[in-house]
Amino acid sequence: MSAVLSLADVYRARRRIEGRVLRTPLIESPSLSAIAGAPVFLKLETVQPTGSFKLRGATNALAQLVEQGCRKVVTASTGNHGRAVAHAARALGIEATVCMSALVPGNKVEAVRALGAQVRIVGKSQDDAEHEALRLVREEGFAYVPPFDDLNVIAGQATIGLEIVEALPDVAHIVVPLSGGGLFAGVAFAARSANRAIRMTGVTMARGAAMHASLAAGRPVLVEELDTLADSLGGGIGLENRYTYRLTRDLIDNTLLLDEDSIARGIVHAYQHERLVVEGAAAVGIAALLDGLLHDTRVERGPLVIIVTGANIDIDLHRRIVSAMPAQSHSHQSS
Amino acid sequence: MSAVLSLADVYRARRRIEGRVLRTPLIESPSLSAIAGAPVFLKLETVQPTGSFKLRGATNALAQLVEQGCRKVVTASTGNHGRAVAHAARALGIEATVCMSALVPGNKVEAVRALGAQVRIVGKSQDDAEHEALRLVREEGFAYVPPFDDLNVIAGQATIGLEIVEALPDVAHIVVPLSGGGLFAGVAFAARSANRAIRMTGVTMARGAAMHASLAAGRPVLVEELDTLADSLGGGIGLENRYTYRLTRDLIDNTLLLDEDSIARGIVHAYQHERLVVEGAAAVGIAALLDGLLHDTRVERGPLVIIVTGANIDIDLHRRIVSAMPAQSHSHQSS
Repeated sequence: MSAVLSLADVYRARRRIEGRVLRTPLIESPSLSAIAGAPVFLKLETVQPTGSFKLRGATNALAQLVEQGCRKVVTASTGNHGRAVAHAARALGIEATVCMSALVPGNKVEAVRALGAQVRIVGKSQDDAEHEALRLVREEGFAYVPPFDDLNVIAGQATIGLEIVEALPDVAHIVVPLSGGGLFAGVAFAARSANRAIRMTGVTMARGAAMHASLAAGRPVLVEELDTLADSLGGGIGLENRYTYRLTRDLIDNTLLLDEDSIARGIVHAYQHERLVVEGAAAVGIAALLDGLLHDTRVERGPLVIIVTGANIDIDLHRRIVSAMPAQSHSHQSS
Repeated sequence: MSAVLSLADVYRARRRIEGRVLRTPLIESPSLSAIAGAPVFLKLETVQPTGSFKLRGATNALAQLVEQGCRKVVTASTGNHGRAVAHAARALGIEATVCMSALVPGNKVEAVRALGAQVRIVGKSQDDAEHEALRLVREEGFAYVPPFDDLNVIAGQATIGLEIVEALPDVAHIVVPLSGGGLFAGVAFAARSANRAIRMTGVTMARGAAMHASLAAGRPVLVEELDTLADSLGGGIGLENRYTYRLTRDLIDNTLLLDEDSIARGIVHAYQHERLVVEGAAAVGIAALLDGLLHDTRVERGPLVIIVTGANIDIDLHRRIVSAMPAQSHSHQSS
């Protein structure tokens, strides 16, 4: 299915990250199963250290670099990938530097520092920060850790796919938040290695979905980045994309685009019925199911798995979103 | 340490419940570690099917009954134990009946029915429901599944202790919500079997703590049951207590009592800093740490584990509690 990645690479990734990354719970959701009319399971990456699946790929990539003698890494991500690189570097005993522009909010700077990484503040834009990261690679011997378009990162994320098919060999359909495609490509590769009939759906936000636009155009394209509740799904896939565009194109059955209200409903449902705090990017699979977008394929196909990718939402934003939901009918009673 | 329970019983329990109950994540909490000045880990029973640790003991007890040829079980619990018995019975393919009084709220009745159990509505009090359950045992051949004072239930809960010491052999202190003592006794027994020096703290609410009053009295005593946020910790330990009173008495180092404001702070901290929705009973360990009640022992002793027992809080109550917390300083920014 893929000449660039083998299942053995995924097993190597799993051996490398074992003990540093959680084998996460796969739990059946009674509320979503009732809505879908088929068993629905949630893969809870929300409980990973640093609060997202990104730790898998970052840990695999860094462990691989350490095997090659590397002692210092750099990235320019201020989000889940940046946190994951910082955490993995500390766990492996190497140095991590995260380049950020002066416009990055103080709380994000502090979150990365608290994980033990060096922070380098440069310029006024994400581009400035990325240029500085690449300068450190060229001039100071740092290794760059790409957020998604890297085979070790993809193989790390693919361990989620292994865990799903091992725990639920009859899985018929896997629903994956779609951004740069590292998660999608990895999970789809591992799952399809076990069973070519597993349906693979990618879900993303209508506002600024680079992979979707690229798939539609038949090549990687730029899209304008817009504000969205699913901010972790924002950003381009890179015009020079090497791996994730092709892997995603070859492995995806269906791409769904969600509006902001739908994503908010997913966040609310996760809180209300699953007792989960999830970020917008992690709510898109649940939201797609609530919107009825996953139903047409379910009847004949059996269990559906939704990957719930992370919990790193601003908690005041979360509180505002769940404040808007109606009270339950039993709100006067204790649980 | 205990003539009634052996470590082999706990291993048997683990083998029986494997695949039906999650081996739950044990994650380090950066926020609580910073407060304690020592590594603090959370054992997340919140992600168990049915949303609480109770599934472990119920599954072990039911699996044992099935081995003996039993095909129908009964309980009178309308809370986490009732849900656990219903779920475990369905998973094992046997019949469960939950007796409830006519005063039990409709949403609790529906929650148990949704898990596939028969509901029998009898009388106007919990006592009436329990009498009916015992009548079914005497006259109709049902097996009764006690909520805590049962060696199979205790051995099932003890698997949490095994998982903790296996994942973190240096653990110095384990903090356990304390109610009837099934969880406390099981965890303390398994942990102390690995290392007699592990400090065991029980935490409960000041309002109506039956085990605490019994330990103080030197024998099982009755206490008045009062409304509390930690409602899962309410109820008596039974004047005829057979196992959990003595095991708890022999294994506990310290009992902490919390007021309602403290429990609410624990719920808020779990939401704000751990992105976890927890019920009051599950927040008491975090709350005790925030109150400074766990600090005196930490410096010389190393890692502390707090068991976060369940997520089954009324979601509107949860929303009201977290609405009262102050906004974070970065509330105007996205995460």
